[in-house]
Amino acid sequence: MARAPVLTPQADDFPQWYQDVVAKAELAENGSVRGTMVIRPYAYSIWERMQGEVDARIKATGAENVYFPLFIPESHLQREAQHVEGFSPELAVVTHAGGKELAEPIVVRPTSETVFGEFMAKWIQSYRDLPLLLNQWANVVRWELRPRIFLRTSEFLWQEGHTAHASQADAAAYARRIHFDVYLAFLRDVLALPVLVGIKTDTERFAGAINTMTCEVMMRDGKALQMATSHELGQNFARAFEMEFSDAEGERRLAWTTSWGSSTRMVGGLIMAHGDDSGLRVPPVLAPIQVVVVAVKDDDETRPVVEAVERELRDAGVRVRVDARPAGLGRRLTEWELKGVPVRVEIGPRDLAEGVVSVVRRDTGEKAAVPVAAAAAAARDLLAVVQESLAEEARTRAASLTREVTTIEEALEAAETGFARLPWKTVGPEGEKRLNQKAVSVRCLQTPDGGVPDDADADDLVAVVGRSY
Amino acid sequence: MARAPVLTPQADDFPQWYQDVVAKAELAENGSVRGTMVIRPYAYSIWERMQGEVDARIKATGAENVYFPLFIPESHLQREAQHVEGFSPELAVVTHAGGKELAEPIVVRPTSETVFGEFMAKWIQSYRDLPLLLNQWANVVRWELRPRIFLRTSEFLWQEGHTAHASQADAAAYARRIHFDVYLAFLRDVLALPVLVGIKTDTERFAGAINTMTCEVMMRDGKALQMATSHELGQNFARAFEMEFSDAEGERRLAWTTSWGSSTRMVGGLIMAHGDDSGLRVPPVLAPIQVVVVAVKDDDETRPVVEAVERELRDAGVRVRVDARPAGLGRRLTEWELKGVPVRVEIGPRDLAEGVVSVVRRDTGEKAAVPVAAAAAAARDLLAVVQESLAEEARTRAASLTREVTTIEEALEAAETGFARLPWKTVGPEGEKRLNQKAVSVRCLQTPDGGVPDDADADDLVAVVGRSY
Repeated sequence: MARAPVLTPQADDFPQWYQDVVAKAELAENGSVRGTMVIRPYAYSIWERMQGEVDARIKATGAENVYFPLFIPESHLQREAQHVEGFSPELAVVTHAGGKELAEPIVVRPTSETVFGEFMAKWIQSYRDLPLLLNQWANVVRWELRPRIFLRTSEFLWQEGHTAHASQADAAAYARRIHFDVYLAFLRDVLALPVLVGIKTDTERFAGAINTMTCEVMMRDGKALQMATSHELGQNFARAFEMEFSDAEGERRLAWTTSWGSSTRMVGGLIMAHGDDSGLRVPPVLAPIQVVVVAVKDDDETRPVVEAVERELRDAGVRVRVDARPAGLGRRLTEWELKGVPVRVEIGPRDLAEGVVSVVRRDTGEKAAVPVAAAAAAARDLLAVVQESLAEEARTRAASLTREVTTIEEALEAAETGFARLPWKTVGPEGEKRLNQKAVSVRCLQTPDGGVPDDADADDLVAVVGRSY
Repeated sequence: MARAPVLTPQADDFPQWYQDVVAKAELAENGSVRGTMVIRPYAYSIWERMQGEVDARIKATGAENVYFPLFIPESHLQREAQHVEGFSPELAVVTHAGGKELAEPIVVRPTSETVFGEFMAKWIQSYRDLPLLLNQWANVVRWELRPRIFLRTSEFLWQEGHTAHASQADAAAYARRIHFDVYLAFLRDVLALPVLVGIKTDTERFAGAINTMTCEVMMRDGKALQMATSHELGQNFARAFEMEFSDAEGERRLAWTTSWGSSTRMVGGLIMAHGDDSGLRVPPVLAPIQVVVVAVKDDDETRPVVEAVERELRDAGVRVRVDARPAGLGRRLTEWELKGVPVRVEIGPRDLAEGVVSVVRRDTGEKAAVPVAAAAAAARDLLAVVQESLAEEARTRAASLTREVTTIEEALEAAETGFARLPWKTVGPEGEKRLNQKAVSVRCLQTPDGGVPDDADADDLVAVVGRSY
């Protein structure tokens, strides 16, 4: 089955491969307004599955969903100085509405700390109202000069959590819970990705935060993608919005807040971390279509077998799709490879004459002839195998492209192909500037064993350094 | 259990009752930018349940979810003349972004026919690409001079479907499928509402449509709320966006499109159609919390019973919440009444001493002493009873407040308390103007038996007339 490659090979030109796969797998297109995107059905179904998995984990921490307005009065955004400084170059501003010029310009939310802050301050009276754990699924706008579909778009979809706590310890513990039990667990168990966890340096930290935890994942070109971040905001926003509560002794105290987010950028990460020269490879736990049953010919011999396999898979709780379209087989197989459906069952007259069907793994391309009666079970059993195989492949790749080094020079060299790990005290703010000049950054600071540091000033922190999206 | 009323009685001041219940049940608040709203957790959980139910029905028609940009270039919106005329006074316009004035102003979407039109025209080449059935869940902005939470807000959440078809007949059939199998079915079977179906007059039709079907529901003050609409757009948008396809004979033809939407306005409709002087009454099929198990005292005798009842309900698939908070019982019961949880199980020491618990219906207030072992089953069985009882009450009320009349004068009189039905040929465009001058409108045109007319010019159409939100 020699078919011409439909994508630029990754090794030739990774950015072009990415553009090709986004277009050919019909994932998304650039919108009419520069920097925006149109998310097409298949990519949106992937996003819906991501939302469902992340949302369930967020709710399991006790947070509740809400919806805050898209529009923020310009004056509100300015109440937290560092925050406005961080975001002002990226803002889209509404100056006219209802046929008139507005008295005060309105900002389209780039993130919602300030709107949540204003209302949470009203809702919190006593320590009994704490913690207040809120989350919203929404669109946000950050004007991008160099947009890239899914990775950096002027409008993107995300969830943003905003919480308030009675103590710094409680805020820190909750931010960690989100970091580990929501983001890390989702990325590892659903997306089958090896995740670097750690904290951001002063330079890379979120505008207004006192600590930012990050989940960084290596893409197949050796660059890092930040998949989700969790911020401890200290009392900065609480102070700006007078978010006070009475403690058990009746004393008025300032709350401690957190915020945390993950976005449609994860779709880009999924593509670049698992995709190969034939297209996406979607991990089965995530996949909107886990098994596609392909009728080679839609005839009277094939149809009952296709239906029986489909029914058995569906009854077993597998997300299955039947493809009995009249288009040519090669074109259809190419489409399912591009879309990265984990397992294919191909049912054709020649195989059926021998009482078998073909069961094909998308990750390795391995194809097995399986007796008709065993096909559904074989396809279903492969799902866990493919999930682990994709995870293992990504882990091995990330490990092989990560080097332990001791100098900035070595770090820069290692960053040409992957990550470098070196002592943070060797780098420091000055070394970080030197790295940045070469488009390399400190992705995160870790404990020596790869954990999230409790103490940002500990002497033995390790900097993980690389190029990034 | 005499408690002071927490809400203005409906009979005294219905609009004030609505404001009270929105505030006291902690459903929503006005946002900082005039006309926007903050949807709080309980109301958002109601909206999430609505979304889930509507989304499943939309997907069952074969439509797929997508996401199109928030921003529309001003020039695009102007390509369909009637459409831009309909929406221009309501637009919010972004003139600055990324720290600069934009070369072309950007409109924040008031609805997305134009953006969908542009891309669907690219995706449709052949009759094999049709029908193309798309839907999105998104926020939209229509500047409101007289905003009202949930009912009319400058930003609201909705789904908007956009489809293209090879023939007018196919477009019309699909629009009807959405109207009946999605909207009517959802409003009737989930929200327990009696729905008036029909078509809009020329005056009331969607900007750019050739036919608009509507689902109208009577609120408890006798006014109508439009809950969902489905539009046949003819070839108006296809022409504006050159949405052409090759038919089976290779001829180039223009597509026929539809659009259809339902929004957070339905939350307002739910409140006003079922709510009473004690608060919301949420139909059990919709309710995010179907049964609340209230521990009168959180002590060692009560706790195991509460847990057993909770477990049994949860195992039976009931959405259950336990309330064992230390706050006073009266305050807690008031809260659950305000939130309209359909069934309460109250477990207290005095009842337990006699081996019973109290099972209370929110819709009627009826309270029954039920043996402990039978409590969960009794509560669960009540859910279907309450659902039907709310539906029946709303049906009876709507029927009793609808009068068959023969003149405009009688219609105006009937509209003071409810709806009037009269021959459309008696009203006509001139009569419609007279009604409008008195803030009364033709809600829809029906066949004599209350169906959706196939022929908008039929001689026997009935106009349903009333005041509206």
